[in-house]
Amino acid sequence: MSLNETLTEQKDALVSALKAEDGDQLDSLLPEMRAADIAEILEHIAEEEEDRQKVFALLDQLPIERRAHIIGYLPDDLQEALAQEMGDDTLLSVLEEMSADERADLFNLLGEDRRETLLRRMARQEREDLKRLASYEEGTAGAIMTSDYVAIPSGMTVSQAMMRVRQTAPDAETVYQLYIIEPDGKLAGTLSLRQLMVARPGAQVDDLMIKDVISVPVDEEQEEVARLIARYDTLAVPVIDAEERLVGIVTHDDAMDVAEEEATEDMHKGVSVGKLEGGLRSASLFDLYRKRIVWLVLLVFANIFSGAGIAYFEETIEAYIALVFFLPLLVDSGGNAGSQAATLMVRGMATGDVRSRDWAKLLGREVFVALGLGLTMALAVSVVGVFRAGTEIALVVAMSMVLIVIVGSLIGMILPFILNRLGWDPATASAPLVTSIADASGVLIYFALATAVLGLPGV
Amino acid sequence: MSLNETLTEQKDALVSALKAEDGDQLDSLLPEMRAADIAEILEHIAEEEEDRQKVFALLDQLPIERRAHIIGYLPDDLQEALAQEMGDDTLLSVLEEMSADERADLFNLLGEDRRETLLRRMARQEREDLKRLASYEEGTAGAIMTSDYVAIPSGMTVSQAMMRVRQTAPDAETVYQLYIIEPDGKLAGTLSLRQLMVARPGAQVDDLMIKDVISVPVDEEQEEVARLIARYDTLAVPVIDAEERLVGIVTHDDAMDVAEEEATEDMHKGVSVGKLEGGLRSASLFDLYRKRIVWLVLLVFANIFSGAGIAYFEETIEAYIALVFFLPLLVDSGGNAGSQAATLMVRGMATGDVRSRDWAKLLGREVFVALGLGLTMALAVSVVGVFRAGTEIALVVAMSMVLIVIVGSLIGMILPFILNRLGWDPATASAPLVTSIADASGVLIYFALATAVLGLPGV
Repeated sequence: MSLNETLTEQKDALVSALKAEDGDQLDSLLPEMRAADIAEILEHIAEEEEDRQKVFALLDQLPIERRAHIIGYLPDDLQEALAQEMGDDTLLSVLEEMSADERADLFNLLGEDRRETLLRRMARQEREDLKRLASYEEGTAGAIMTSDYVAIPSGMTVSQAMMRVRQTAPDAETVYQLYIIEPDGKLAGTLSLRQLMVARPGAQVDDLMIKDVISVPVDEEQEEVARLIARYDTLAVPVIDAEERLVGIVTHDDAMDVAEEEATEDMHKGVSVGKLEGGLRSASLFDLYRKRIVWLVLLVFANIFSGAGIAYFEETIEAYIALVFFLPLLVDSGGNAGSQAATLMVRGMATGDVRSRDWAKLLGREVFVALGLGLTMALAVSVVGVFRAGTEIALVVAMSMVLIVIVGSLIGMILPFILNRLGWDPATASAPLVTSIADASGVLIYFALATAVLGLPGV
Repeated sequence: MSLNETLTEQKDALVSALKAEDGDQLDSLLPEMRAADIAEILEHIAEEEEDRQKVFALLDQLPIERRAHIIGYLPDDLQEALAQEMGDDTLLSVLEEMSADERADLFNLLGEDRRETLLRRMARQEREDLKRLASYEEGTAGAIMTSDYVAIPSGMTVSQAMMRVRQTAPDAETVYQLYIIEPDGKLAGTLSLRQLMVARPGAQVDDLMIKDVISVPVDEEQEEVARLIARYDTLAVPVIDAEERLVGIVTHDDAMDVAEEEATEDMHKGVSVGKLEGGLRSASLFDLYRKRIVWLVLLVFANIFSGAGIAYFEETIEAYIALVFFLPLLVDSGGNAGSQAATLMVRGMATGDVRSRDWAKLLGREVFVALGLGLTMALAVSVVGVFRAGTEIALVVAMSMVLIVIVGSLIGMILPFILNRLGWDPATASAPLVTSIADASGVLIYFALATAVLGLPGV
């Protein structure tokens, strides 16, 4: 049976056992399943109000460690609701069992009073660590890092370091990358467990370690951290504060989640949808409305220019009504070519494939590509044009097509670059925005050309 | 100095040293730099034809291991050119030093004759391994996996296993996840190095290992493999053949590359651009033309329907020429709302956030969201309408807006679902395609409504 089939079977079994409140069945199913899968099923079930309580009840019965592990996989709104159901004692135990980065995330979902209460009840080191992790701005390295790393004090031998690794193994997020620190907390170097394992027991760790460590400051943007991890294929990247002290690490799995999140955000921006926290499936009606309406209304007004353009050329339209047949396909072609150009640029910039300095060269290349595209499309449309409206109009349409595609492509290429220069997110150059601008220019080009070539009656 | 500043400095220094063919400078710079960074610089330099030879000369002088490491980071076309410059002896040494997955990739870039020649000169096990890895279809688990994993025969003790790990450490892609195999090669279980390290030396590995291993078949789609690694936060995923024998592993760094590649492909599909091998910056004029023209021409013809629709309502347009002012903004609104709906759906399906079974519920939700969006946009536009063209037309425009936005959104929601049901990639429901269909319906709705409400003169 394939993995997906096994998962579906488990899911159905768990769902029915949960709804029937069949304790025995649950006891036999749950140990077999992975935390990530259980969390996904619980998320689905909790969407039905009456079943939400059953989800809470189930989690209540699990051993604390397992419970904390599953909770870490749940979406924010469900974690928040769960926390409200829990008493302080239970919540503290859960927080303690969670990994440091997940702990900080859950902590930040709580109300201020509750946070104060819980902090007061924690041991000092725990409290300081949590306060610091929870203090970083969302979307930065500090917000996604964990403080559960293996720190080896400078000056140890290989066998001493191995002993330290074994000691800290239960709590560390990863033991496969070790960080050697100075007495003042500064990051001196890094060493992989692999290197440590094959080294001579008496060797000095400081001699073996890599001193030139790739690290990021706590306020680095999360997408930049993810890009670094992807670029150098590392397991984790250390995070340092303003004094160059090691304060945490970002692991590859969190980097992968960040990369996915950022890609989703860019794709949504590409159609002028604002950032949807928490995913599509669980988004509320109001969220979906709110994240889309702003740009949709702005674009309505942006499209007035096209309408004004058409209205301006009313006489030409009335004289050669056959022109309107070609209006949508011409105008849309500019928008389509422009959207393609913009998306290629925006994604290229996001993946680091293109840099600002490449832009002039890419623009020049786009002019030629657009020329080729425009000529081909003009050819395709002239065939229709000749049969539909005669050679004169076909000529106007063909000429317009070439110009419209070139201009549209240039708009698509230039807009992200301008936005980037102004310090804004180039992804704001969405398909709808580029299309609206290209539409207005398309209307102008088409009708101006038509008026010039065909002339107005009586003129 | 920040990481980016250091990199830029290194780059400039390397570029000038290379162009000046300053051997001493190169000797002092190169050991300081990471393979990934050197590869990126060489890639840039090699774009200029006269400098390409210098790149080859530089690589020639590097120790084989370093050379192979850097080559693995180079784009396909450059690897291919390099391989052609190399004699068989050198190429064989390079291949030997590369990791198994990169070796297979480079091998597949060579001509058939050359491949035969090289295979004949390899040791049997090497040859078999390479032939098998190179045989898998691109885009599958087999094509991205490596055979450099640590295999522990069933029945070993912990200390025996540790010894095996130390032995294979130099060659393995990762030593942090170990795979226990039966005598017949079947995957029996997996164990992390962390678990091995803290276990009692005399314990049986078979007792400690996780038997329920997440694995994928060799022909699994690469994006599915990446999704699994992201979901379970694992370091690597084992790949098994039809007889359930372990044949390779896919590591987290390759999964991250695949995820980025797939996201880029989806974003390009979202504006009807075909798959660009090798990235935007190095794409040829012809590639850029070829990957865009197909859909652009198809869309020209798809947009004929809108044109035909407008032509059909010529009389209404002539009677109420004020209507054309609102045409672009109405029609585009349907396309914009539809593009948003489609993108949300397509991305949701790609990240696993929405499943096929959620679709009916999401569709119902979209109707309400679209209603809200449409009403708001209708309100915004009626203000303009009343001032521009009077209350009657403003009413027609407002009513059309609501209907057009709802219909456009539904088209955007339904299209990916239909494509998915037909077994096609839902990402084919691009913004331009959805917009073209929404445009045609928008034209119909607007002018039919106008004709019905305003009536035709003399009728």
